[in-house]
Amino acid sequence: MFFASDNSGPAHPAIMQAMVDANEGYLMGYGQDDLTHAVQARIRQIFEAPRAAVHLVSTGTAANALLLATLSHPWETIFCTPESHISEDECNAVEAMSGGASLSHVRSVGAKMTAETLADALETRGGGVHSPQRGPVSLTSVTELGTVYSPAEIAGITEVAGAYGLRTHLDGARFANALSVLGCTPAEMTWKAGIDAVSFGGTKNGCLAAEACIQFDPEDSWQLELRRKRAGHLFSKHRTLSAQMQGYLADDLWLELAGHANRACARLVDGIRAAGLGDSFVAEPQANMIFVRWPRRLHAALKAAGATYYITEGSLEGADPDALLTGRFVCDWSMTDTAVDTFISHLTQAVASGAA
Amino acid sequence: MFFASDNSGPAHPAIMQAMVDANEGYLMGYGQDDLTHAVQARIRQIFEAPRAAVHLVSTGTAANALLLATLSHPWETIFCTPESHISEDECNAVEAMSGGASLSHVRSVGAKMTAETLADALETRGGGVHSPQRGPVSLTSVTELGTVYSPAEIAGITEVAGAYGLRTHLDGARFANALSVLGCTPAEMTWKAGIDAVSFGGTKNGCLAAEACIQFDPEDSWQLELRRKRAGHLFSKHRTLSAQMQGYLADDLWLELAGHANRACARLVDGIRAAGLGDSFVAEPQANMIFVRWPRRLHAALKAAGATYYITEGSLEGADPDALLTGRFVCDWSMTDTAVDTFISHLTQAVASGAA
Amino acid sequence: MFFASDNSGPAHPAIMQAMVDANEGYLMGYGQDDLTHAVQARIRQIFEAPRAAVHLVSTGTAANALLLATLSHPWETIFCTPESHISEDECNAVEAMSGGASLSHVRSVGAKMTAETLADALETRGGGVHSPQRGPVSLTSVTELGTVYSPAEIAGITEVAGAYGLRTHLDGARFANALSVLGCTPAEMTWKAGIDAVSFGGTKNGCLAAEACIQFDPEDSWQLELRRKRAGHLFSKHRTLSAQMQGYLADDLWLELAGHANRACARLVDGIRAAGLGDSFVAEPQANMIFVRWPRRLHAALKAAGATYYITEGSLEGADPDALLTGRFVCDWSMTDTAVDTFISHLTQAVASGAA
Amino acid sequence: MFFASDNSGPAHPAIMQAMVDANEGYLMGYGQDDLTHAVQARIRQIFEAPRAAVHLVSTGTAANALLLATLSHPWETIFCTPESHISEDECNAVEAMSGGASLSHVRSVGAKMTAETLADALETRGGGVHSPQRGPVSLTSVTELGTVYSPAEIAGITEVAGAYGLRTHLDGARFANALSVLGCTPAEMTWKAGIDAVSFGGTKNGCLAAEACIQFDPEDSWQLELRRKRAGHLFSKHRTLSAQMQGYLADDLWLELAGHANRACARLVDGIRAAGLGDSFVAEPQANMIFVRWPRRLHAALKAAGATYYITEGSLEGADPDALLTGRFVCDWSMTDTAVDTFISHLTQAVASGAA
Repeated sequence: MFFASDNSGPAHPAIMQAMVDANEGYLMGYGQDDLTHAVQARIRQIFEAPRAAVHLVSTGTAANALLLATLSHPWETIFCTPESHISEDECNAVEAMSGGASLSHVRSVGAKMTAETLADALETRGGGVHSPQRGPVSLTSVTELGTVYSPAEIAGITEVAGAYGLRTHLDGARFANALSVLGCTPAEMTWKAGIDAVSFGGTKNGCLAAEACIQFDPEDSWQLELRRKRAGHLFSKHRTLSAQMQGYLADDLWLELAGHANRACARLVDGIRAAGLGDSFVAEPQANMIFVRWPRRLHAALKAAGATYYITEGSLEGADPDALLTGRFVCDWSMTDTAVDTFISHLTQAVASGAA
Repeated sequence: MFFASDNSGPAHPAIMQAMVDANEGYLMGYGQDDLTHAVQARIRQIFEAPRAAVHLVSTGTAANALLLATLSHPWETIFCTPESHISEDECNAVEAMSGGASLSHVRSVGAKMTAETLADALETRGGGVHSPQRGPVSLTSVTELGTVYSPAEIAGITEVAGAYGLRTHLDGARFANALSVLGCTPAEMTWKAGIDAVSFGGTKNGCLAAEACIQFDPEDSWQLELRRKRAGHLFSKHRTLSAQMQGYLADDLWLELAGHANRACARLVDGIRAAGLGDSFVAEPQANMIFVRWPRRLHAALKAAGATYYITEGSLEGADPDALLTGRFVCDWSMTDTAVDTFISHLTQAVASGAA
Repeated sequence: MFFASDNSGPAHPAIMQAMVDANEGYLMGYGQDDLTHAVQARIRQIFEAPRAAVHLVSTGTAANALLLATLSHPWETIFCTPESHISEDECNAVEAMSGGASLSHVRSVGAKMTAETLADALETRGGGVHSPQRGPVSLTSVTELGTVYSPAEIAGITEVAGAYGLRTHLDGARFANALSVLGCTPAEMTWKAGIDAVSFGGTKNGCLAAEACIQFDPEDSWQLELRRKRAGHLFSKHRTLSAQMQGYLADDLWLELAGHANRACARLVDGIRAAGLGDSFVAEPQANMIFVRWPRRLHAALKAAGATYYITEGSLEGADPDALLTGRFVCDWSMTDTAVDTFISHLTQAVASGAA
Repeated sequence: MFFASDNSGPAHPAIMQAMVDANEGYLMGYGQDDLTHAVQARIRQIFEAPRAAVHLVSTGTAANALLLATLSHPWETIFCTPESHISEDECNAVEAMSGGASLSHVRSVGAKMTAETLADALETRGGGVHSPQRGPVSLTSVTELGTVYSPAEIAGITEVAGAYGLRTHLDGARFANALSVLGCTPAEMTWKAGIDAVSFGGTKNGCLAAEACIQFDPEDSWQLELRRKRAGHLFSKHRTLSAQMQGYLADDLWLELAGHANRACARLVDGIRAAGLGDSFVAEPQANMIFVRWPRRLHAALKAAGATYYITEGSLEGADPDALLTGRFVCDWSMTDTAVDTFISHLTQAVASGAA
């Protein structure tokens, strides 16, 4: 019953095997090798973007910060939701790598901004020399609350950005999970909807540590390479990253893993609803991560039963057993039906005994 | 005949196996797991430094820049040799992560500074508010010219630094190779000689991408953790790094691999000397990397024979066949006697036919 | 009828005279002169803070950014209101000088945070390595909406900050105007209420370009000097700054000028109320700056009559004559009763003819 | 006998008067005023550069760092001499404002690089992703040793830079003094010789604190404005700067003052030669600053006689009376013949009594 995060599980065996297979003989370093070139070509193909620049890094924070630094100037402000990973969970990485750009929050519902709230936010940042200048817009999908932007929603947002001449970034740490929900193509979810750059995640969906920075317009790709180098993110033994990506993308493994994680989460959601807690979701469950508001006593019972997940608002310690605390549950590619069912059984029992 | 770099070879099979073995089940992310803790403890033990803070990262540039940023202030200047990796090959990574500290060059022979040249350099950077302030001293061993500092030399340098209240860093991308030359203990090569922080390399000696940042005084270790996070260098699936280090350090594999690489290089050096080119070394061969000054025609012959290595000064293209170009040869843990002997045979032949 | 800003007027003649008087003979540069030392001593005396470090700079943005950079670390987030000058009007100066610290908004009423809203904001920024770490709290008084914190309010806020071990900064670009409202001592408005550092403004109150950075705890004063130097803010001919400050502080001129500006603004407020527009204030008028919500037609009439001031929300261009636009009026030390009365007479007339 | 620096004297009375004259009535802030526009136009005229962008700041360090930050990228290295002010005396200001660009030293004679030494330095910085990338070239004239580049020398250097696609900057803290030596036009000393940007100094030549940033290609001028703002260098009461520049440039005052300073220095040089110390100059005296190598006993005698100047190498304290120490003498616009003659008389006497 391990629902703490999709970065806590192991890598998929096929990806490990790809790393082992690639671990033979000498290869020129720093990405100047055939395996890396093949992976770059494969990503271009998947995104139907033959001109795109593709660079591999090992963490999502690196991908986000390097891409946003490349899209922005230090005197600009980057528009994002208050819940966004770049604002909440990267310890000022974007500010650091961009040389001091700031973040401006756009009002959100379910961690999603809209074309309208973005337009409002853009209006409050002015044109004069005093205000931080308007910079790129960064979306996350799957969002930090587990919701997913439709291509039409993304297109609406990027249209507003475009009217101000601003470029757009998609934090796709859970790209495959979002894609699996939408049933569209990677191109439809990104550049066809106006996205300029994507952090294409692998780590949360079966890789060990592999993300791709995708720039659909390759004009600034050399800048990104230089930024990656000076951030210490250029791997010498580059197969460490490219072999993972190769394994991840081979035979649509990435889609299969995300589909599995989403289905496991759907099973969890069904169980929660069946237990009568269908009203407790903080945002509409869509992908592989959900948030619920449950009484402290219920959380306590589940933790006591051995469930592992994060309380993201409030604390288990506290006097009032009825106080509502927010819990986060994430299913990764390796989540089993058994684990979900065991959890639901504990949940149902706890609810039956009056814990909720 | 692949002598291009010790970061071009594969990982050692035992290290890959450690990664595969660790790839089971859920583990709390971001280094909060038993495997990581065990590796940290092992490194403390190896260095006889029970209080040391140990943090894992994936590249040497990250290790160097994070440690030096933690040791310095943005208004300080870091003392290093003109040949140092941080000055020549990190695309301003130290400047970036430190928030704008500068580097000051200390005169060197064979890429090694001395207590005297450091003292001279320190004198030229003043105490007033106008000059960059004196900051930490950074050494590399094995140096960028393949030489090695003795513990006594290091102690002399750190003593000068200490007289100014400055802290010291050792770039140990090839730490094991240096240690193998010296035959001393890791402690004798570092903190017992006055070193405050070490970039302890694994990547060039059999790992895929794993380095340890060691701070002997743990006072600033939380700062280093925050810097690592905001630089995008905190791995969520931390076993990616810790499993490599575990395999690397188990059964003294790291020492065995470095010893092998050094011996392969010594065999190469012996062959070069036997071919009558003993005077061509740029610096005294000591570890697993050498530099030689050879005529263009000799380089051309060796390249034609299939040898892979870098020309680091001058270019193969050029009219004068007698022009001296510098070549760099590096042996990694996987270098075979056959490869060395084949190369030497080509070299001997070329010399015999008048190429040198 | 010039109400555009208190940085648009001339310097007070006595301050110009002080500059002229100081412009004789040689003085050691960079603040190592008796005039500067005397000014520093005078400021310590005024603040009853004999240990305080005092450094002069030429702009308020420099004072704010240098002090906040000194109070913070690059991985921290600085707490301020959404209206704060550092967030809205300094083009990421704090982010730049701090090396990438971020700003976090604290809910405000009338541009003032409260102990409660600060406590809420502090709770949302966590302790782990992922979140930007909690950094200093920055208040502005007179605020960007013209309101003033009472010493008790400040004390409540700094107490909350102190409970988290955080230090506090006061942006006092209009320090004298606030002090004049409160009728307390400079010490009561600052360190006695828990403030650690003050941007003590002169430019908006009769100087040409002179602000003092005050650190009540001098421990980091050398750091501030180094930061000032590397930001290009260390004046060589330091009398340029110190002579202004000398003239500003002599014979309580600074208090007299602020009192005058505040009284001129009160006269303006009285006139607006007498014209029947007492409900139009965006925030309670207290000092020398007010904001009003008036119909577009009224603004148009006043602009046509020759009044100069900023429309800070909305635009004069627009179809609807009844649309409410926010206007900002600021009185500086040189505002005359005649100018105020003329404006009020135009206003009264316009209201009478149905413009409001 | 005050030869410490040309930033220690007063402002010229005509410049003070211009400040007093400008101190009347309201002016729109931040440089949006007629006086500033007039000064910008005048500088364009003086430089025969009708398209040039001109922005005023208060210090030379600000001018240098803002211009070089605008000319460079953070992953680049800026080429300068080891003696350059940006390397020695700005406490990493360029590194700070550029977001972490580095400086690379070019070999110099008399603090001047040459086309050849620049070409050598450029060759050592490579094209790959690892090395800091080649960035702009920065010259100083009058140099930090008092020498002056001829237009032909500058043209030779900028041609080399241009061959690498690099832009060039001139630190003209003593621009007028250099111009006065050369007897050419400002255009010939700058853009006609290939210079892209100039720090045009006023502070050392009769202003209080005023420098102009000149960009001959105005393409990046908005970037410079934003950088100036976020560095806290945008003056609200902009007449503080523009009035100084107005007075400085009116009636060729700037040329007159520099000519005077240079002549005073030439008189000093003549006296030193007449005293038999013509061999003691560190570099050929050309403008208003000289360096001499004299025995400690001679310095002691002159200091005892009341001369004020800096010992820039070595220290007056020390046992050996014959040890050679370097002294720096600078004449500013206000230097009198009497002061020079008095000094020479003391010098001659000291030499006669065997001090040299």
